[in-house]
Amino acid sequence: MRVGVVGFGTIGKRVAEAVLRQGDMRLIGVVKTTPDYLAQMAARSGIKVYVPDDKVDEFRKADIPVEGTTMDLVKESDIIIDASPEDVGAENKDRYYVPLGRPAIFQGGEEAEVADVSFNALANYEGAVGKRYIRVVSCNTTGIVRLLSSLMGNGIGISKARIFIARRGADPKEYKKGPINDVVPNPATVPSHHGPDARTVLPDIDIVTMAVAIPATLMHMHMVYMELDGQYRRDDVVEALARTPRIHLFEARHGFKSLAQIVEWARDLGRKRNDVYENAIIRDSITVNGRELYLMMGIHQEAIVTPENIDAVRAATRMAGKWESIRETDRSLGLVSEGKKYG
Amino acid sequence: MRVGVVGFGTIGKRVAEAVLRQGDMRLIGVVKTTPDYLAQMAARSGIKVYVPDDKVDEFRKADIPVEGTTMDLVKESDIIIDASPEDVGAENKDRYYVPLGRPAIFQGGEEAEVADVSFNALANYEGAVGKRYIRVVSCNTTGIVRLLSSLMGNGIGISKARIFIARRGADPKEYKKGPINDVVPNPATVPSHHGPDARTVLPDIDIVTMAVAIPATLMHMHMVYMELDGQYRRDDVVEALARTPRIHLFEARHGFKSLAQIVEWARDLGRKRNDVYENAIIRDSITVNGRELYLMMGIHQEAIVTPENIDAVRAATRMAGKWESIRETDRSLGLVSEGKKYG
Repeated sequence: MRVGVVGFGTIGKRVAEAVLRQGDMRLIGVVKTTPDYLAQMAARSGIKVYVPDDKVDEFRKADIPVEGTTMDLVKESDIIIDASPEDVGAENKDRYYVPLGRPAIFQGGEEAEVADVSFNALANYEGAVGKRYIRVVSCNTTGIVRLLSSLMGNGIGISKARIFIARRGADPKEYKKGPINDVVPNPATVPSHHGPDARTVLPDIDIVTMAVAIPATLMHMHMVYMELDGQYRRDDVVEALARTPRIHLFEARHGFKSLAQIVEWARDLGRKRNDVYENAIIRDSITVNGRELYLMMGIHQEAIVTPENIDAVRAATRMAGKWESIRETDRSLGLVSEGKKYG
Repeated sequence: MRVGVVGFGTIGKRVAEAVLRQGDMRLIGVVKTTPDYLAQMAARSGIKVYVPDDKVDEFRKADIPVEGTTMDLVKESDIIIDASPEDVGAENKDRYYVPLGRPAIFQGGEEAEVADVSFNALANYEGAVGKRYIRVVSCNTTGIVRLLSSLMGNGIGISKARIFIARRGADPKEYKKGPINDVVPNPATVPSHHGPDARTVLPDIDIVTMAVAIPATLMHMHMVYMELDGQYRRDDVVEALARTPRIHLFEARHGFKSLAQIVEWARDLGRKRNDVYENAIIRDSITVNGRELYLMMGIHQEAIVTPENIDAVRAATRMAGKWESIRETDRSLGLVSEGKKYG
């Protein structure tokens, strides 16, 4: 399967490298719009760089070899993963993917209407099989939907989910964004977009979210409150989460006392860019009180959608079934697979 | 009424200065344990400095005039406000206040058992009248109890309260504390102490709290979720909060988009040390959805218990009734009184 990646920023670079690790996919190249160090690095590492028509000269002046234009990449690919900035994906769809008849995977920054289905591998892989346009929901929504799917998939019904998010204010490289020493309602109104967005994947869930932005860059922190549809033992919840792929439990007595320590774990594993692909659930926080469930969960905003993009390609192109794809993606990216149940 | 303040740190200095502003109280002096700039500043401003027996020489060497010992201050005072570090208040009680027969006000760092009653002026002033030992609950708990009391006092019943707190990691002056660029479960287990602590004042409330510490120093941020005992209009909630003393509504369209902007408001008012005595509720966040109520609320950890300490003195000594005391405290400290209903 020939895959083109349009956009080579925070998500695009991770997804392109993930494609390179798949036995059943070939990376044709990536579209880069700025001739910066990352374009240089990509070209030097053998990734073919395509650019918008009006940027060809700029890249040549910067001595970055240009393989062709965006149009060329789309033509040479069987499927596109579009990792453009918010709303640019929809423009690309009209300009390239529809005219050239190419299926495409979009990111959560786009409106849900850009695609035939909003996607999360655990939640609705089957519903995306053979779909022409698929939207991988954004980082926080991906984390929420995985969590809900894990519980429901293990027979734990959810009456309502109320999730309170301390969002990282900026990504590590975003030197212009804040806040510094502040807490910013983000948004001040209720709900934040994450609740409605989760319902594009799981329409029947009663979910409301609130969010504030804080001066941290590593991960988001979710404080989760749920009402379950009956009495469950804490052990049932812990076991459900522990055996779900892409969810990992971190325990204080093992040294995990903060999100930074979870990121250090990824660094110690040698994961590129300290990517934490898994929902990082604080095991100590899992509390069942009657029908109520509480827990805290870290979500690595830069990395978490990487595996979902790979699975979305397989779903769109009917290359593999749900669990086959999830298992292969997880193996190729080195996710924790110990104790996980694939299927 | 002769008041002695034992401890002159974050709370003690604010409370001592608040006592100076009361027409019906006289500040005998303060106990200071370190001969630092603040001790100098107090002495120069005319506040009499008392020190523990074993510190007298140290202070004299530092050229800070010493009025007497802790024992002297307690003897010369009719009532003590103890603003010592956690657990030291209980030691002081056994060592000074009980033997010398002095009533005392303690802070929320002490165990509830140190006092006859845990106190918040709006919630249970009457229950503290004439009590010998009163404990003013800590900053977050004070904020929570005010909020709940405001609603209940205006006929809005609360079935359950679930509150999710992004705590400031340290006070502005605490140069050794973290976190930097991190989110720390604080604690990882559920509930955090705030829920049970709120029940020392309002025993019948079904309340659970979760908390994380973040890299900010200005204020705590509470994300509040409640289930009410019936259907209420949003306007009813807004009006209840707006007319409650010590609660102030901040609206985004007036320029209040973050906690830092609320602190800037206090600076623009010329409040000493930018103290925000009020619960700072983000008006835009107040959302009623069926029986559910959502809102965001900033709590200034350094300042919010100042008025409660003054009221606690009046309650313990039967100097004034509830609303008389609250109104006088608020007037003397310059709290927002516009539109407030005192009684």
